[in-house]
Amino acid sequence: MSNERITLKDVAAKVGVHSSTVSRVLNPATRGMVSPEIATAVAAAAKELGYRPNLFAYSLRTSRSFTIGVIIPDLTNPVFPPLIRGIEEVLGQSNYTVILANTDNDPAREETLIAAMRGRQVDGLILATARRDDKLVRDIIDDKLALVLINRATQVENIDCILTDDAAGIRVAVDHLAALGHRRIAHIAGPERLSTGHRRIAGFRHAMAAHGLDCPPANIAACDAFSEAEGQRALIALMDQPSPPTAIVAGNDMQALGCYAASEALNLNCPADISIVGFNDMPIVDRLAPPLTTVSVPLRKMGAAAAQAMLGRLSGENPKTGTMELTPHLVVRGSTGQVPPTS
Amino acid sequence: MSNERITLKDVAAKVGVHSSTVSRVLNPATRGMVSPEIATAVAAAAKELGYRPNLFAYSLRTSRSFTIGVIIPDLTNPVFPPLIRGIEEVLGQSNYTVILANTDNDPAREETLIAAMRGRQVDGLILATARRDDKLVRDIIDDKLALVLINRATQVENIDCILTDDAAGIRVAVDHLAALGHRRIAHIAGPERLSTGHRRIAGFRHAMAAHGLDCPPANIAACDAFSEAEGQRALIALMDQPSPPTAIVAGNDMQALGCYAASEALNLNCPADISIVGFNDMPIVDRLAPPLTTVSVPLRKMGAAAAQAMLGRLSGENPKTGTMELTPHLVVRGSTGQVPPTS
Repeated sequence: MSNERITLKDVAAKVGVHSSTVSRVLNPATRGMVSPEIATAVAAAAKELGYRPNLFAYSLRTSRSFTIGVIIPDLTNPVFPPLIRGIEEVLGQSNYTVILANTDNDPAREETLIAAMRGRQVDGLILATARRDDKLVRDIIDDKLALVLINRATQVENIDCILTDDAAGIRVAVDHLAALGHRRIAHIAGPERLSTGHRRIAGFRHAMAAHGLDCPPANIAACDAFSEAEGQRALIALMDQPSPPTAIVAGNDMQALGCYAASEALNLNCPADISIVGFNDMPIVDRLAPPLTTVSVPLRKMGAAAAQAMLGRLSGENPKTGTMELTPHLVVRGSTGQVPPTS
Repeated sequence: MSNERITLKDVAAKVGVHSSTVSRVLNPATRGMVSPEIATAVAAAAKELGYRPNLFAYSLRTSRSFTIGVIIPDLTNPVFPPLIRGIEEVLGQSNYTVILANTDNDPAREETLIAAMRGRQVDGLILATARRDDKLVRDIIDDKLALVLINRATQVENIDCILTDDAAGIRVAVDHLAALGHRRIAHIAGPERLSTGHRRIAGFRHAMAAHGLDCPPANIAACDAFSEAEGQRALIALMDQPSPPTAIVAGNDMQALGCYAASEALNLNCPADISIVGFNDMPIVDRLAPPLTTVSVPLRKMGAAAAQAMLGRLSGENPKTGTMELTPHLVVRGSTGQVPPTS
């Protein structure tokens, strides 16, 4: 017999209860309404018969799917798995299932994926893909779907949004380089359309001013993406100046990896000739040659906080988390050193 | 007006066609039945009105969701993003959306996630989580859901399964170490319950025999997982022998990373004191200190092949791909060297 033919009624008949009781037991939100003895008997019968709930029918009946969609911009960036783990841990404890989708930083694909997630009746969406001006975010809010942003913020107001304190992260990076004697410090910048890019550029200008250091436009290298390729291109451009920088604050660790490749191509030794700081402290960068000095972001905690915000939205009890900024800290490793004596 | 209130009929009325025509246009499988002019007009009207298909209703009507579920065992292992990218590229070209879920190598969680995916009416599942003896795989086949395995095989027959040629990969690793003069070569082994673990152990025994080298049981260190922590534990145990190995063939790159950590803890220099070979050539291992010598697996190609196999299953035209083994090759970097002279 195919499992799909087993219905709530079959399970109910086996236990000798009404099918609405079975339905209550199988829904984590209503299980507490049924006595533990009955709940155990129903669960055992469901398992024995091989009952597999039809989540489609269930969703249509209860308008709850106990599924949260998480949309990320670039699965190949190692920063996202720890964020996702934090989300999964907290939502899993509340019996929510997480399904993921990857947009590849393509807005058209993002629209398709969000539509697909919504079409599958997810109870909420956690987006790591927001742009500062984001029509998709406004659409989701207009439609009153539970929404939490993570890592990237938007200008739309009244949103739950879990961020790193980007300015504080850039500040500790610049403080460290200034203490090593660097004065010509450049920033490899993420895209201005993303809050992470925008906020880190502003933080860089502010930190340089606080140290009384020049920050000419030529020393902020704009990138189209937080990618290794863009970091590599940007460092090569920065070094092709009459007075090139002696230190780089990269927009993220992927760009810092690109700086490693560019340094090799330019025959520059890191850190003897050029100091490089990353942002995120993604897995494995402690094992690079040289180990990467970087701004450590509490990625798993950010994921957990986003999941808590989502549960708050769904419960209706604590509907607003608002913007929460987690504080990063600097991890000094081998990619930063004293300013070269000839500089 | 909420977008959700716009129906097929609204779109049909705007264009002046029957709603079944709109339905055909919006389904990639039936679009060719409608003239290009009408199709263009319908698509424009749907966009202008902000029509968002109710995929739930659509799925119930057409029994197609154009969504494929991909289940992976460990999102924090960098081997999976390239596999997923290969899958997404091919399925995206055929208008399929990919949704992902992460089991954390937990069979109970895997069962929940597969049920959740099936409840959301995915058209097929691509599993990177198969065990050699896998009840979940048998259930999916019994229920005739389109299924493709990737990376890990199962003993169940008549399955489409895209693998690396594990034995060939281990063979080139052992060949390389033997050529460097190593004779006491150990294998850090993945779990026997997974085909990757099982096949690599068999391949190791075979390759050692081919070189006339001893392969005592003490030099095959069994691990519970393909993880950094298990690799670290295993190398420390292997070195605590009267005649410890001079070279290690790790079960995968994560275990090799654990060997790096263990070498540091044991004050062993890699490669002067111990040579280490990984498996997979996951991103960034070329930038480690030392850069990792590893067996390079065509991950993106494997993903693309799995997606092609899935499309074949779904079309019914080319229903069986069967087992396909892609050939890996060795990439020699800095983690392997001549056998130490004192050995």
